[in-house]
Amino acid sequence: MNKIIFLGTSAGVPTRNRNVSALALQPENSKAWMLFDCGEGTQHQLLKTSLSAYNLSRIFITHLHGDHVYGLCGLLASKGMQRAEMPLEIYGPPGIKEMLETVMKFSQLNLPFDLKIFEISKDTTMRFEGMRIVVVELSHSITSYGFVVIFDDTPGRFDIEKAKALGIPEGPLYSKLKRGETVKLPDGRSIDGRDLVGVPKKGRRIAIGGDNDDPLLFSPFAPYDLMIHEATYTQYDFDHLPRKFKHTTAKQLAEAAQKMGVEWLILNHISPRYDKKGRVSELVEEAKRHFDGNVEVAYDFMQIEI
Amino acid sequence: MNKIIFLGTSAGVPTRNRNVSALALQPENSKAWMLFDCGEGTQHQLLKTSLSAYNLSRIFITHLHGDHVYGLCGLLASKGMQRAEMPLEIYGPPGIKEMLETVMKFSQLNLPFDLKIFEISKDTTMRFEGMRIVVVELSHSITSYGFVVIFDDTPGRFDIEKAKALGIPEGPLYSKLKRGETVKLPDGRSIDGRDLVGVPKKGRRIAIGGDNDDPLLFSPFAPYDLMIHEATYTQYDFDHLPRKFKHTTAKQLAEAAQKMGVEWLILNHISPRYDKKGRVSELVEEAKRHFDGNVEVAYDFMQIEI
Repeated sequence: MNKIIFLGTSAGVPTRNRNVSALALQPENSKAWMLFDCGEGTQHQLLKTSLSAYNLSRIFITHLHGDHVYGLCGLLASKGMQRAEMPLEIYGPPGIKEMLETVMKFSQLNLPFDLKIFEISKDTTMRFEGMRIVVVELSHSITSYGFVVIFDDTPGRFDIEKAKALGIPEGPLYSKLKRGETVKLPDGRSIDGRDLVGVPKKGRRIAIGGDNDDPLLFSPFAPYDLMIHEATYTQYDFDHLPRKFKHTTAKQLAEAAQKMGVEWLILNHISPRYDKKGRVSELVEEAKRHFDGNVEVAYDFMQIEI
Repeated sequence: MNKIIFLGTSAGVPTRNRNVSALALQPENSKAWMLFDCGEGTQHQLLKTSLSAYNLSRIFITHLHGDHVYGLCGLLASKGMQRAEMPLEIYGPPGIKEMLETVMKFSQLNLPFDLKIFEISKDTTMRFEGMRIVVVELSHSITSYGFVVIFDDTPGRFDIEKAKALGIPEGPLYSKLKRGETVKLPDGRSIDGRDLVGVPKKGRRIAIGGDNDDPLLFSPFAPYDLMIHEATYTQYDFDHLPRKFKHTTAKQLAEAAQKMGVEWLILNHISPRYDKKGRVSELVEEAKRHFDGNVEVAYDFMQIEI
């Protein structure tokens, strides 16, 4: 199973319970892991998990607001202090390269590993081992992206016992059969590989949002097994804000998730007003009134498998 | 009394017990406070103290290495989110202005308060209410400064009871006497103010170091009531480092403090190797062998009065 650990679930500022945004994804069977957003203090959060910056291979940044990005240079520096040699790739919105390189220059941050910074744009598609990641343009007060992680389908299990029982000689023929091809045996029989291979398992599909006031922007890649998206306010609180910000309410997110066929919805990026006053459950209650699937509110160090 | 709170006492990287560098100074009778260095996570540390970014008025940065400066933008952002209106001044080495302004531009950090960034240099002297702060150039792998905080002398107490007993009429004459002037009374007597004013209290003098391998660079302003300076390693460990960095050992610091007439010495900026392995006391033991005054190792949230 792929593992996700929430490293920061607060909107804008840290509270005593929640840090600002960061989320770790460790793909199944991979020591290397990926980070989505990197608010200040992300490296401190890592100290409380089994994850190490040493094995971090890729960072994806949704947008350049401080609560999503101010932890980057510190994390790079600490990874460097560990003498990490695994190259690190950073994918983020235009500007990230100049911003990071300026800080690195003035703070004389010299890294012992290879750092590549890629500026992404709408519909950028990245192909990594075992998955694709597609960039979705979101709607916020600054250029903001979402990431759709599409794991590859897993081929069905090859029934080796059945193959042996059929008297198929081990060797190169097995590889062809595993791929579902038809092979001709030395004795003249023809064997259809598909009869020996189980049903392939569809790869999981996860939507990971940056700040955004329109979650339906994730529609083109729906449905989703899991959607992790900001739900900064309840609808009532949002309607009564003296100044409006481009964020999503629990109600809006739930309605969008319902339309897009989301199976599991996680509300993230929680305004400190809920955390500080014991009001977090209001968000999930509001979402439940508009969404039939599983729904919960993220908290720091929450760990899920998918 | 002036209050000092250590907000981060680790060298280079945070540990579970110690954050990277930051130190708060709250002058007596002042709600506004000052910060010396601002490593990543300083705003998180503040959440565990009675200090609020809201009342922070001045920040002094010793040098631009990440563990002393990567918390700056996050702290500014959070102060902004509090709708703080008190202007903030930042004093730091050349480059700090471009570094901060670049990050602020790309992360669209718009602050509701006035921010002034001053680039300091060797021997810059700053005059604030109740104190002077003088910049000392240190010796490190990057331009690094120390700060000498010299509190103003407090005038001696005016003995109002004695003045009344002498039959001096209250009013403008009292102000002159408080300043130690000689006044002529209506009845012809001449009174020397110095007879009515106690001994003035010498203002405290504190040395606060940035990273540095030569603590004697603080000599020109010695002696000190208090010196807070890095002692990253013990001498033995430093001598056996495979790669040398420009840092001070506990022994070097103690010897320098002894020469400079330091009364109270606090070892700071502790290598994670001591913190992680229960070896912190080695530093203070080493220092004590070379220094006669009070000496201790700083720890996070340690609070002192001077």
